[in-house]
Amino acid sequence: MFGIEFPLLAFSHCRDVVAAVTNAGGMGVLGAVAYTPERLEEELRWIDDHVDGRPYGVDVLVPGKIDESAERAGRGEGGLDTMLAAVPREHWRFLAGLFEKYDVPPPDLDRARRTHRRGGTQVTKEGATELIEVSLAHPIRLIASALGTPPPLMVDKARAAGIPVAALVGTAEHARRQVAAGVDLIVAQGGEAGGHTGEISTMVLVPEVVDTVAPVPVLAAGGIATGRQMAAALALGASGVWCGSVWLTTEEAETSPAVKAKLLAATSRDTVRSRSRTGKPARQLRSAWTDEWDGPASPGPLGMPLQMILAQGAMAQIDKVAATGNPGARELANYYVGQCVGLMNTVKPARQVVYDMIEEFADALDRLNGITGGD
Amino acid sequence: MFGIEFPLLAFSHCRDVVAAVTNAGGMGVLGAVAYTPERLEEELRWIDDHVDGRPYGVDVLVPGKIDESAERAGRGEGGLDTMLAAVPREHWRFLAGLFEKYDVPPPDLDRARRTHRRGGTQVTKEGATELIEVSLAHPIRLIASALGTPPPLMVDKARAAGIPVAALVGTAEHARRQVAAGVDLIVAQGGEAGGHTGEISTMVLVPEVVDTVAPVPVLAAGGIATGRQMAAALALGASGVWCGSVWLTTEEAETSPAVKAKLLAATSRDTVRSRSRTGKPARQLRSAWTDEWDGPASPGPLGMPLQMILAQGAMAQIDKVAATGNPGARELANYYVGQCVGLMNTVKPARQVVYDMIEEFADALDRLNGITGGD
Repeated sequence: MFGIEFPLLAFSHCRDVVAAVTNAGGMGVLGAVAYTPERLEEELRWIDDHVDGRPYGVDVLVPGKIDESAERAGRGEGGLDTMLAAVPREHWRFLAGLFEKYDVPPPDLDRARRTHRRGGTQVTKEGATELIEVSLAHPIRLIASALGTPPPLMVDKARAAGIPVAALVGTAEHARRQVAAGVDLIVAQGGEAGGHTGEISTMVLVPEVVDTVAPVPVLAAGGIATGRQMAAALALGASGVWCGSVWLTTEEAETSPAVKAKLLAATSRDTVRSRSRTGKPARQLRSAWTDEWDGPASPGPLGMPLQMILAQGAMAQIDKVAATGNPGARELANYYVGQCVGLMNTVKPARQVVYDMIEEFADALDRLNGITGGD
Repeated sequence: MFGIEFPLLAFSHCRDVVAAVTNAGGMGVLGAVAYTPERLEEELRWIDDHVDGRPYGVDVLVPGKIDESAERAGRGEGGLDTMLAAVPREHWRFLAGLFEKYDVPPPDLDRARRTHRRGGTQVTKEGATELIEVSLAHPIRLIASALGTPPPLMVDKARAAGIPVAALVGTAEHARRQVAAGVDLIVAQGGEAGGHTGEISTMVLVPEVVDTVAPVPVLAAGGIATGRQMAAALALGASGVWCGSVWLTTEEAETSPAVKAKLLAATSRDTVRSRSRTGKPARQLRSAWTDEWDGPASPGPLGMPLQMILAQGAMAQIDKVAATGNPGARELANYYVGQCVGLMNTVKPARQVVYDMIEEFADALDRLNGITGGD
């Protein structure tokens, strides 16, 4: 489908990782949700300049269901004030209490409101549409939708441009719906994955989805960080893999230093599926942030995107302060990551991760053939 | 290690399944926890008569930590009354309320007390020791410990008899401890498995455990019901697989008809990890039983084995009444099963399950070799 040498797709918010994987024989996919349309334009231009025509893709987050008042605000009905007004005072108070408890200077309010605005509008349909339009003006080879069925506009525009559309799913039923909506490629993402995820594991989900949508190709995602796991995914019937977490500890990744240190030290037990960053269950490093929001004193996370409005500015500040060595900020800091974080123990160039996976994949296959006498 | 043709171990409480898998080229392992020593003796004698010297094993449940008052009762200190007295009145009331709410005749109390006694004493060290002694008097080829580190007595007696000891683990750290305790074979069981299980998925856990305990062999468990998944497990570095759930819908399985029907209809989304049957988190079919115990009106499940005392007699009655068509009992009925229940959609002889897995395994390997041009 993409003419790549090794069926490994790399999801990353970092353009350097995207370009490195594409240049190493896989295919990078830029996560666009953190960007304004202007910034995305800039990132894609940089990638174009660094991959010499090799294939790459873009992923946008298009939620199926979002809070209505937030959506109205995204459409400009009532604007930022409507959206901010929808966040209960109790939640702002709880957030302020966290900064106090962990002795972290709270974020500058004006800056926070700007960041919050971004957090809220990006995940509205209008926000996503702008990102899709910017993306399709570049020579991308794949456009992916991380949440929910892609809007008809995305499918129509991509089809007109001859670009395959991929969608991430966590159940066979969602996969069926995505294919009905015109999706060309399904990413079956198990519950061990980082970020927004369901509860069915990769081992069970992949064969279920493959059988459900055949002959539509399926990529396996969730828990995959090594060539052995890639071989396992292909044995399950996947046509390739989609990896996200493993890039977070590469040399190129823009992961904040405090978070990178935590990721390298974490075991596979140190993640949790929590609504505390976005309002939807997303697997992430367990930290004081998730413990507090999911703990007994918490008012409970809001829905999407209201919890995102709360979390985005707060986490940006926490990362910034953690970088100065503040112990409370280090306790709070976290990031989306899958259970395979337990296998991520050294910093490597992204290119090296790809080469290692290729080698391990070949070894796994040799071992498999050896066990069965090569038949 | 066992001289079997196909590295597939089948965990089942049903002697017919154990014998059928052993005779089909895999190796059956009888789950002994539901049996009294006398009954276990009878079951093992039956298996001896039906496998013509082919290898089979036994699994006992030896919990690492159990409620002290229950343990005293298991040792005969205070007897059944001590153990029953440790169950709060609130929990008996909640249980009685469930039978009323779902319009299910409550169990006969004398019978229930007998069943309850069994539920409690089996999982004490003394109960497990008796089962181990009965097992080692038969030509078993493996003895497994489903929970916690096997008692030194089990390791010593098995070693003296030349029988390898296996242990189920859900984390790499537990695997390390089991090997230190003298275990010969590790079963790395992912969180998608049925029964007592952790949260790390098979895809992540297996390579972690393989790397941690090498050169000790590792079997993969959790989510495995097909030959594709078996090929995936071996690609991850496992030496074989350990399957439990897939036998529950075989012709031979003694699964109650109401539960069997529910298992066949269930999707991979229909399981839940709940403490409501044993007091420890165990994956099972989600039903009114799990919803009620984990719901807002519940006093919360007790620890092990007190919750087992409550649940065992109740579930026996629910199964019995469900068989008569009682709708409330059907709603409540459930059983331990992994997420692979979504792949279990037809009743087959256990032998056929093995043959299908062998064939699918070969197909998966062919496909893998095809993708990579056979290198």
